[in-house]
Amino acid sequence: MYKGYLLSDIRSFRNAIYLLWHRTTLHHVYSTSITHQANVNPVSSILQRLQQEIEENPGSLPFQEITYCNLGNPQPLGQRPITFFREVLSLCDNPTLLDRDETPSLFSTCAIKRARMIIDSLPSKNTGGYTSSQGIRSLRQAVADGISARDGFPSDPDDIFLTDGASAAVILCTSDNTLHMSMHGTWKWAYFQNKTAMSSEDAILCPLPEYPIYSASIILHGGTRVPYNLTEHDGWGLEIFEVKRCLEEARALGLTVRAMVVINPGNPTGQVLSITNQEEIVEFCRKEGLVILADEVCQDNIYSENKKFNSFKKVARSLDYDENDLSIVSFHSSSMGFYGESGRRGGYMEISGVGADVKDQIYKVASVTICPNIAGQILTSLVMDPPKLGDESFESFQAEKEKIHSSFWKRAKTLEKAFQSMEGISCNKIEGALYFFPRLHLPSRAIKAAKAEGVSPDIFYARRLLDATGIAVVPGSGFHQASGTIHIRCAIHPDEEKIEAMIPRLKTFHEAFMNEFRH
Amino acid sequence: MYKGYLLSDIRSFRNAIYLLWHRTTLHHVYSTSITHQANVNPVSSILQRLQQEIEENPGSLPFQEITYCNLGNPQPLGQRPITFFREVLSLCDNPTLLDRDETPSLFSTCAIKRARMIIDSLPSKNTGGYTSSQGIRSLRQAVADGISARDGFPSDPDDIFLTDGASAAVILCTSDNTLHMSMHGTWKWAYFQNKTAMSSEDAILCPLPEYPIYSASIILHGGTRVPYNLTEHDGWGLEIFEVKRCLEEARALGLTVRAMVVINPGNPTGQVLSITNQEEIVEFCRKEGLVILADEVCQDNIYSENKKFNSFKKVARSLDYDENDLSIVSFHSSSMGFYGESGRRGGYMEISGVGADVKDQIYKVASVTICPNIAGQILTSLVMDPPKLGDESFESFQAEKEKIHSSFWKRAKTLEKAFQSMEGISCNKIEGALYFFPRLHLPSRAIKAAKAEGVSPDIFYARRLLDATGIAVVPGSGFHQASGTIHIRCAIHPDEEKIEAMIPRLKTFHEAFMNEFRH
Repeated sequence: MYKGYLLSDIRSFRNAIYLLWHRTTLHHVYSTSITHQANVNPVSSILQRLQQEIEENPGSLPFQEITYCNLGNPQPLGQRPITFFREVLSLCDNPTLLDRDETPSLFSTCAIKRARMIIDSLPSKNTGGYTSSQGIRSLRQAVADGISARDGFPSDPDDIFLTDGASAAVILCTSDNTLHMSMHGTWKWAYFQNKTAMSSEDAILCPLPEYPIYSASIILHGGTRVPYNLTEHDGWGLEIFEVKRCLEEARALGLTVRAMVVINPGNPTGQVLSITNQEEIVEFCRKEGLVILADEVCQDNIYSENKKFNSFKKVARSLDYDENDLSIVSFHSSSMGFYGESGRRGGYMEISGVGADVKDQIYKVASVTICPNIAGQILTSLVMDPPKLGDESFESFQAEKEKIHSSFWKRAKTLEKAFQSMEGISCNKIEGALYFFPRLHLPSRAIKAAKAEGVSPDIFYARRLLDATGIAVVPGSGFHQASGTIHIRCAIHPDEEKIEAMIPRLKTFHEAFMNEFRH
Repeated sequence: MYKGYLLSDIRSFRNAIYLLWHRTTLHHVYSTSITHQANVNPVSSILQRLQQEIEENPGSLPFQEITYCNLGNPQPLGQRPITFFREVLSLCDNPTLLDRDETPSLFSTCAIKRARMIIDSLPSKNTGGYTSSQGIRSLRQAVADGISARDGFPSDPDDIFLTDGASAAVILCTSDNTLHMSMHGTWKWAYFQNKTAMSSEDAILCPLPEYPIYSASIILHGGTRVPYNLTEHDGWGLEIFEVKRCLEEARALGLTVRAMVVINPGNPTGQVLSITNQEEIVEFCRKEGLVILADEVCQDNIYSENKKFNSFKKVARSLDYDENDLSIVSFHSSSMGFYGESGRRGGYMEISGVGADVKDQIYKVASVTICPNIAGQILTSLVMDPPKLGDESFESFQAEKEKIHSSFWKRAKTLEKAFQSMEGISCNKIEGALYFFPRLHLPSRAIKAAKAEGVSPDIFYARRLLDATGIAVVPGSGFHQASGTIHIRCAIHPDEEKIEAMIPRLKTFHEAFMNEFRH
């Protein structure tokens, strides 16, 4: 079954992108392991079945629980939502609460104040109607204010598009008639009306390894992905000479490179770019006339003391480049950070340095699905405009935030130590984001065994790990790891106790695996 | 500006579909009137400017307020949300409320019970995580139960896909690799792996006039739309012989017709199909091997005493056709009905009579945006599984529902009477949905005047109406009215007072318009 499925996927660009996408989820492990003997099944149902098996027949599996290191999905793994955010959402859903005497005893003053402010800013003070396809103006203003405060440079609410999560923004921004503009525009995205579809000569630079929605969208829209390598031995650094080499190679092949994707903090690689490095990228993109597509969804996940998050827009403005010099799109989401509201589908993109015609086109594409969901819009405004010093909720908000941060930090250090201590595994320090991307140096007999099963070694390893320990990770091939290398992506979302508990299982499995296939 | 814009749109299928889409919104009136002298602007900003003008310079415009008959967006026009729905959403956002003593005095027992039930059914009792891309199982179960209760025939939660509104479902269901299956499948949607893209020979039957997202998606995905005429003089009836004629013509042209779109209750036409008519359609689609794509989003808006809503699945099952006989997709949404939660982006599609391979593909497409928003998922489960007779909230829920229903009914009758009394306007009775689609028989001098301004007569009329009275309607050309005919779509969403108040303005304008252009 799976073979046919794969064939059809390989035959079809359209299908291929969805397969790529799925490679970032457990589905891949299954669709390429379990399901190549059986039918292709959605991840959730398979996980549900495993979970069910554990509950109904305890002891029937070699593990007592599944450890979900596959996805960045913190709340179902125990992370508590930020109280202030949920209070505001709750009040906006049920505004009659604002006039009830009991409310002040149930909700913080800040939440009540904010909810009232949001509701008062809506047409007919209503939280149930279609909104502008770009999102509610007052909420975009809050996002823009948050960006201005973060960067120290102004942000314009008209440059903000609220979206159903960052993936919707990426798809929106790379949709046929938007990407087509970035692909066929000059570095200012001027729109060539006589060109109506992308061609395979139009290319975008993407990191290798990468979070695959970018290459997926590029393939979907008929463009070409030009991968540039991150330097694993140098902490997944981004070397401009390497990007330049790839750009020149692409141009030599007759490709017209339109934009460069940068993921910072890195997914799946967990590095944080230095400001010097970001300045090089800005200079490079400006000089070469490339749009910067900046994935900044993990901007609130930094663990390294000597690194901090800087948006590409801030770096560009600090270099005195304004929107006439450079086009930058920044993607952000309410799914990551310390908020982890993945299922709420909140997000935004800030588009700076593009013409009104391009914005009109993006608006037009956005309005195909009418508008982003209101709860997600509100949540995104709260993420970017949280309680401030002096606000009554500030201290409790800060305490919740710090607690989650320090817990992420502890989990990151625990996993880092574990991976670095294991035979045949090299693992960079995690500076930011929510993932490790350790490299596996497996015995050639393990690689042969994988081949014999018709799967790549990373999938073979991930499946064996899952079957033996219940620890779910994602094979590196889902992230376009450099060919010939073997990686797994391991998210740090299980809570500290679970991470502590999985380490011995992980080590025992790995040792046994290495021994089994040792020469 | 507009001319170039239009040209580029006409050159580009991709753009054309967005233009079509926009024709269902005021944007069209503007992008084709105001903006063909100026820049193309998003609807919202233009409406905001008009609104602002009214507030800041009262009396500067010939009207005191805008009457929004352009969109089905009831809540910003004053419709109150259903209390039970909002209470449950509010509690699910802030589950800590469930353990507070004050809560029973603020929320109904039913809402508390339902919220608890929903939260208990979630992984880690959490409402913030990614869900299955198909939606949360327990909520799909609630939707399936609601469908079973509505139809008297079983519904399977595995056939339900929760979506961000119905538009997302339509786009999902008609996305390249899904539509491609429906387009290239047999009537059972078997998947031909050796075919990777739609071709223009693949066609889908769509009503004329229609809500244009269907033709838009078909064009987007490279297929061909085969329009069949609704019979205006017979209350926008759907005549099978006419559909058959179109099918045969299409086949004679070498097209392979794969599916038939039916919108019931009708948008923009407001008719409700008789069960006999639906039986004919089912028999026809079964015999001809066509997938039924049933837009049933207005199923809770019926005004005619002698008509009731029947889902196509129910009609098929009543004829003893099971899923081996016929493929049916039903689209529903939380945006219409008496709930009108447009901005919440809740919806579902029920897919019956398709193979597991097709469902896997649809799941794969759905997972590109990871999952539908949780608030929308919850809301959709409430719409399909509301308080029942015996539940404490039943009476108040029913009262709210009836109040909105009877108000819709009154507005519908008022507008119907008004349109039918006006010179040169013929207007069918409204049986369901939320729209009138009256036909305008304009003097030839008006048609000449429109031509002189470079717009079609319906746009000319809609713009004149808006400029003179502030009444916003949508030109019929946005809905593919039969060529040579002139219509406007008028939604019944403004409240009774506003509808009453607009009638004299409408009549005075129309009379003056007719007199101005009379021979």
